[in-house]
Amino acid sequence: MSITPARSQPSATASETDPETLGWMKGFPPLADRTITFQDGSFRSFPELRWAWSNIRQLVPTVNVWRGAGPASVLPREDHDIGAVASTTMDGRPMTFARMLEETYTDGIAVLHRGKLIYERYFSALKPHKAHLAMSVTKSFTGVLAGMLVSEGRIDPQAPVTDYVPELKASAFGDAHVHEVMDMTTGLVYTEVYTDKNSDVWGLRRANGMAPIPPGYDGATTIFDFLVTQKKQGEHGKAFAYKTVNTDVLAWICRRASGMTLSDLLSERIWQPMGAEEDAHYHVDRIGTESGGGGLSTSLRDLARFGETMRNHGRFNGRQIVPSSVVEDIARGGDPDKFKLAGYTTLPGASYRNQWWVSHNAHGAYMARGVHGQGIYIDPKAEMVIARYASHPVAGNAANDPVTLPAYMALAKELMAGG
Amino acid sequence: MSITPARSQPSATASETDPETLGWMKGFPPLADRTITFQDGSFRSFPELRWAWSNIRQLVPTVNVWRGAGPASVLPREDHDIGAVASTTMDGRPMTFARMLEETYTDGIAVLHRGKLIYERYFSALKPHKAHLAMSVTKSFTGVLAGMLVSEGRIDPQAPVTDYVPELKASAFGDAHVHEVMDMTTGLVYTEVYTDKNSDVWGLRRANGMAPIPPGYDGATTIFDFLVTQKKQGEHGKAFAYKTVNTDVLAWICRRASGMTLSDLLSERIWQPMGAEEDAHYHVDRIGTESGGGGLSTSLRDLARFGETMRNHGRFNGRQIVPSSVVEDIARGGDPDKFKLAGYTTLPGASYRNQWWVSHNAHGAYMARGVHGQGIYIDPKAEMVIARYASHPVAGNAANDPVTLPAYMALAKELMAGG
Repeated sequence: MSITPARSQPSATASETDPETLGWMKGFPPLADRTITFQDGSFRSFPELRWAWSNIRQLVPTVNVWRGAGPASVLPREDHDIGAVASTTMDGRPMTFARMLEETYTDGIAVLHRGKLIYERYFSALKPHKAHLAMSVTKSFTGVLAGMLVSEGRIDPQAPVTDYVPELKASAFGDAHVHEVMDMTTGLVYTEVYTDKNSDVWGLRRANGMAPIPPGYDGATTIFDFLVTQKKQGEHGKAFAYKTVNTDVLAWICRRASGMTLSDLLSERIWQPMGAEEDAHYHVDRIGTESGGGGLSTSLRDLARFGETMRNHGRFNGRQIVPSSVVEDIARGGDPDKFKLAGYTTLPGASYRNQWWVSHNAHGAYMARGVHGQGIYIDPKAEMVIARYASHPVAGNAANDPVTLPAYMALAKELMAGG
Repeated sequence: MSITPARSQPSATASETDPETLGWMKGFPPLADRTITFQDGSFRSFPELRWAWSNIRQLVPTVNVWRGAGPASVLPREDHDIGAVASTTMDGRPMTFARMLEETYTDGIAVLHRGKLIYERYFSALKPHKAHLAMSVTKSFTGVLAGMLVSEGRIDPQAPVTDYVPELKASAFGDAHVHEVMDMTTGLVYTEVYTDKNSDVWGLRRANGMAPIPPGYDGATTIFDFLVTQKKQGEHGKAFAYKTVNTDVLAWICRRASGMTLSDLLSERIWQPMGAEEDAHYHVDRIGTESGGGGLSTSLRDLARFGETMRNHGRFNGRQIVPSSVVEDIARGGDPDKFKLAGYTTLPGASYRNQWWVSHNAHGAYMARGVHGQGIYIDPKAEMVIARYASHPVAGNAANDPVTLPAYMALAKELMAGG
C-alpha cells in the first residue's frame, strides 16, 4: 500500500464526479467521451473508476460465489439518522458523518449497531443489489477462510509454505512459513506502489487480469506464474510489509488444503451459511484463478453481514459460521512492533494479523481495508459494524483515514451513549 | 446457422468427453493440457467447449440479470422416469429418451408436463445453480421483449428501423423495417457459417467479445460498430435468412424504445416477475453492450420457467408476465413459404416468427434454438415444455434434430396418453 497520496487531492468532489449525473456508460452506445473500457485502461482513471468499481464484471471475467438457494438472512432495521454526528478530522477540521461520506467518495455505507441496520445509504453507481469491488478487503476474507482451515487442522501455520505449494521452492516463499504469509512478514523484493507503473504490483495486475497486457509483453499472464518468480529480500518474520502476493500465496494454500476453488470455498463456508442476499464474485486470471488478494465484489449488505459475523465471534444467522477462536485470534491482533516500521502514520500503535488491520485502540476496533476506501470497521466495545464501499480518487487509505477514522470513533461513542 | 454439419460426427461420445472426468480446468493450477483460455481460442474447441458453455463468465466479461430480492417461484415436482420412452430417429434408428440425451451431448434437461417438473437431469459441467450459455436461445428472449414493447406501442413493427436507430441509415438496415429484423427476412451480404473463419459471423464474434482480437485487427470491436457496416444484398421481406445481426439490431431497437439496457429490461420484465431462481447474465462487448443475439446464460430451471410462461400464454408465478397476444403471435408462426427456401431439411413446413422457430406440426410445437443443441421446446397440445442445455460438437441443429425432435414428439404422445 502506498502511504503517500499519489497526487494532491483532486478538486472534483464526489457529487461533481457522480457517474450517473456525468453520464458515464449511459446511452446506446455511450458517448465516446463517456465510454470506459478495460482495454484502454480508462477504468482505472478518475473519475471513471467511480463507475468501474461498481461494474467490474462488465470489464473482466469473473467467477460466481453462490449465495445458495435459501432466503437471505434478516437484517433487522432501525433507522437512525446519524448524518449529523460530529467529529474532528486528524488535521483538525470539524466534520459530520454525512459530510465525511461525501468527502471520501463513498459509494455505499451500512452501519449496524447491536445487529440492527441503523443507517444505509447509496451514492454514485452503487445500488443495494449490485456488487462493488472490495479490492484488498478481499484479503480479510481469504484470511478468515485460511483461519477456518487452520482450526480444522488442514493448514499448519508453522509449516513451510512449500508443504502446500512445493512449486514455490525456488521463489521467495521457498523458506517462508504459512504464518508469515498470513501476517505479511515475508521479506520480498516485490513492491506495491499503485501509482508507479514500474512497481511490481502492476505485474501482478497483468497476471491476475486487472490490467491490459501490452503488445510484446513477456511477463507472467497468470497469478501462479507470477508467484513462482517472486524473489526474496531481507528476512522473513521480522517486519510487516503490505504485499498482496502474500495473500495470493495464502489463497493457494487454501485451495491445496481444501481441494476447492476459493469461490466454492467462500460460498460453502461463508456465503451460504451467512444467508447472503446476493451472489458475490471474484475476478479471475485467464486460467480461472480467483484474485484472493483483491478480486472479490459483493453487495454492501453482504459485506455488512460478514462484519456482523465477525463482531459476533463468528456466529450469525443462527449458526456458528466461523469458529470463535479464528475471530478472536484476529481481534487480538499481531505484533505492533513489527507493524511500526511500515510507517502508517494514520494507524499509530496498530498491528496486522491474518489479513486484518487491528487498531489496538480503546475500543479494540479492527478493520478490513481496500485501497479506494472500501472497508469493514468492527468496533467490539460499541457493538458497531460499518461496511463501506467507496471510489476515492487517491489509491491509499492515508487519504481516507484522517476523515473516516475519527468519524467512526465519534459515531461509536454516540451510539454507546445511546445517542 | 450452418445447415450442413461442420465435420463428421466425432467418435468421442458425451460420456467420453465429460469435462469433469477428463479433468478440464481442475486443480490449482490446472494441468497445461487441461487448461482452457479465451485468449488461445481453446474454449471453442471440442471437447473444451463442454466445459466452457457452463463457465463462460470465467472467460469473458458479463453483465448481471438480477432475479430480484424475492423467493424463487415454485416449480412443483412429480418425478416420472421417462428415460425409457422410445422413438425412432429421422434416419430410422431406434432410440430412447435417455439415449438421446447422451447422443446429443446434453448438459442438462428439464421436462415440464402440465406445469410440473417431471424429469430433470444434469450431466457434464452443468449444475442446477450454474448458468449455461444459451447462445441463439437468447434471440427468443430478445424477440419476446421486443414483442412486449410492440404491445405497449413503444415499437411499431411497420416502422423503419432508422426510426429507432438513425445511425443505421447508411447500412443494410437503412431501408429495412422492424418486422423484417424480427422475422429475419432482411437481405444482407453477411454470412453465418460458424465453421468458416472467414464468415462474417466471426467478425460479429470479435465485435461482441466472443472471439479474441488478432494482432493488427482493424475491424469492428463493438457490436454497434459492426452493425453500422452491414451491407445489403437482395431485397428485404422476401425470404427468411438466419443472420444474428438482425437480432442485435432488434436488441438495439429495444434499448432505444425502452431507454434501458437489455439486461435491466430482461430483469424487470421477465426475470423478476417470473421468480427466477438464479441471476442470469449476458456477455458484453468492450463497451458493455449485451449480445442480444447469443450472449445470455441462465440456469436450466429458469429456462424451463420461461418456457412454461410461454406455454401458459405469458402467465406464470401468479401474474401475466408477457401479454398473451405476444405469445400467440409467436405460436401462430410466420410464413412457411418464406422459410422454405432456407433449406432446413429437418424442419419441413416450419416458419420463423419474431425470433422463434415454429414447427407447424400436429401439436403446434415451437422452439427457441441454440447452435450446440440448447433449446426450449414448447408443445401446446401435449402441455409439455422441454428446456435443454447441451454442448454438441457440431455447431448446427441439423446434428441434433434427427434425434431430438422425434424423441420430443414421442414423449409428448406418451404424456398425452397418460404414460
